[in-house]
Amino acid sequence: MIPQNSDFRQKVQELFQQAHFMTYLGVQLVDIGAGWCQTELWVARHHAQQNGYIHAGVQASIADHTAGAASATLVAANQYVLTVEYKINLLRPALGERLVCRATVLKPGRTLIVTESEVMVCNGELSKLVAKATFTMAVLTQEGKNG
Amino acid sequence: MIPQNSDFRQKVQELFQQAHFMTYLGVQLVDIGAGWCQTELWVARHHAQQNGYIHAGVQASIADHTAGAASATLVAANQYVLTVEYKINLLRPALGERLVCRATVLKPGRTLIVTESEVMVCNGELSKLVAKATFTMAVLTQEGKNG
Amino acid sequence: MIPQNSDFRQKVQELFQQAHFMTYLGVQLVDIGAGWCQTELWVARHHAQQNGYIHAGVQASIADHTAGAASATLVAANQYVLTVEYKINLLRPALGERLVCRATVLKPGRTLIVTESEVMVCNGELSKLVAKATFTMAVLTQEGKNG
Amino acid sequence: MIPQNSDFRQKVQELFQQAHFMTYLGVQLVDIGAGWCQTELWVARHHAQQNGYIHAGVQASIADHTAGAASATLVAANQYVLTVEYKINLLRPALGERLVCRATVLKPGRTLIVTESEVMVCNGELSKLVAKATFTMAVLTQEGKNG
Repeated sequence: MIPQNSDFRQKVQELFQQAHFMTYLGVQLVDIGAGWCQTELWVARHHAQQNGYIHAGVQASIADHTAGAASATLVAANQYVLTVEYKINLLRPALGERLVCRATVLKPGRTLIVTESEVMVCNGELSKLVAKATFTMAVLTQEGKNG
Repeated sequence: MIPQNSDFRQKVQELFQQAHFMTYLGVQLVDIGAGWCQTELWVARHHAQQNGYIHAGVQASIADHTAGAASATLVAANQYVLTVEYKINLLRPALGERLVCRATVLKPGRTLIVTESEVMVCNGELSKLVAKATFTMAVLTQEGKNG
Repeated sequence: MIPQNSDFRQKVQELFQQAHFMTYLGVQLVDIGAGWCQTELWVARHHAQQNGYIHAGVQASIADHTAGAASATLVAANQYVLTVEYKINLLRPALGERLVCRATVLKPGRTLIVTESEVMVCNGELSKLVAKATFTMAVLTQEGKNG
Repeated sequence: MIPQNSDFRQKVQELFQQAHFMTYLGVQLVDIGAGWCQTELWVARHHAQQNGYIHAGVQASIADHTAGAASATLVAANQYVLTVEYKINLLRPALGERLVCRATVLKPGRTLIVTESEVMVCNGELSKLVAKATFTMAVLTQEGKNG
């Protein structure tokens, strides 16, 4: 896939620095390229739901932001993306020390981008797929509004 | 809808007290009944994404946990629910001082429960629907495992 | 909701007459208004899946087209809608003589419309909800293309 | 993935022969293996929607049944699967002479199976991805009921 903005790496880095909720959760950018993004999160006690598993909301949040970042690698310098909708399957209870998320654009577009995220839970060298999600992202210009 | 556990209110309260991520986010239980649950969250700076809107991950997290709680009102004392999957539409950029979420069971079942959540953003007396989600919840017994 | 095209009723009727697949399935327009549409289908043997139930594909097809029609009541005369994505929950096995679908726009928009469909199975006077779906529709102008 | 029923090929063939709606649509089984299934459909005039494209309902129906068949390759001889829910993204308008669908199980399970379908439109040697869907399937025993 071909980026329209040669500074897309810097732009995506800002997406993480300026999104307070990502800092609050502890999501960190690992790597990006045209049409993809990888992130990680070190799991803490405050990420848990009532059974001790990593909360679905944490998995969905990292999946969503990583998908937004992957999509943002493909838009023009004066454009940004917002999540229109997504669907996520929580495949198994998630327990482990680290979440890794990899998002890949499935279908780029001028107004809509469809992107998939996979969330893996990692314990040392071992990694297991715990969630998969599909996102529809809207491409907006700096002054534009959704809908 | 008919609860199978007369102590369902206490059980759902524990779902909020014991879910560390809900405390970390600031989600509070407002009210519950058989087949429904209402929660709220006072919005802080750390809930924002890069444009200043309330992050989709925050909206999804409150929608998910509230739907789980609504579903949990209908299961037996030795059962609990886990989110299998959901789909959420982010209907408009969310800006405001408070999120309110109302979840309602659409279809109860012995093994699966389908529940909907609506997320409203509130500013003083005004409230606006910002997200709607549909969840499939698995009903598990205390020793059981998903899948 | 306010239609932008006073001839929306005729336009939606054409959506049913010109969609060969709707004729092939047997889906009929029952009624329309601004932001909603109702359809029905008399169930035949060729609508069944292997257990004798009405195939999920039939339920989804009527839900999709009815949602498209409800959305189309709100666009301008030179615009049309295409389904971007949807999610459907099949709530119970569907057996009966007639399907009725009611679609309602949840969130109108200039470029995207979010619409919900409910599919009921009817036997004489009795009716039961068998599926619920949420759709994202793209609003396109006559010469436009998706994405 | 390991099939629990050595006769799974015959069982899946019956899934196509006994599903009247698949015959009515013209969906044909191409090949199966443990955890996957491939089908095709020759496009006719009656598969079209109002703009001449292949109706989303046709794409969803082949995606759904193929996913069900892929899932059914992994269940025991006295078990069958029903679609609980799915989400489908229509990636681009579909025009062409043949649809090919490939479904692959993403996560097998005792009670739930998560399966993905890709739908391609083919014109001669050329093929293009037009839809992608994710399904949750319930595994039921011959006497069981959903919910």
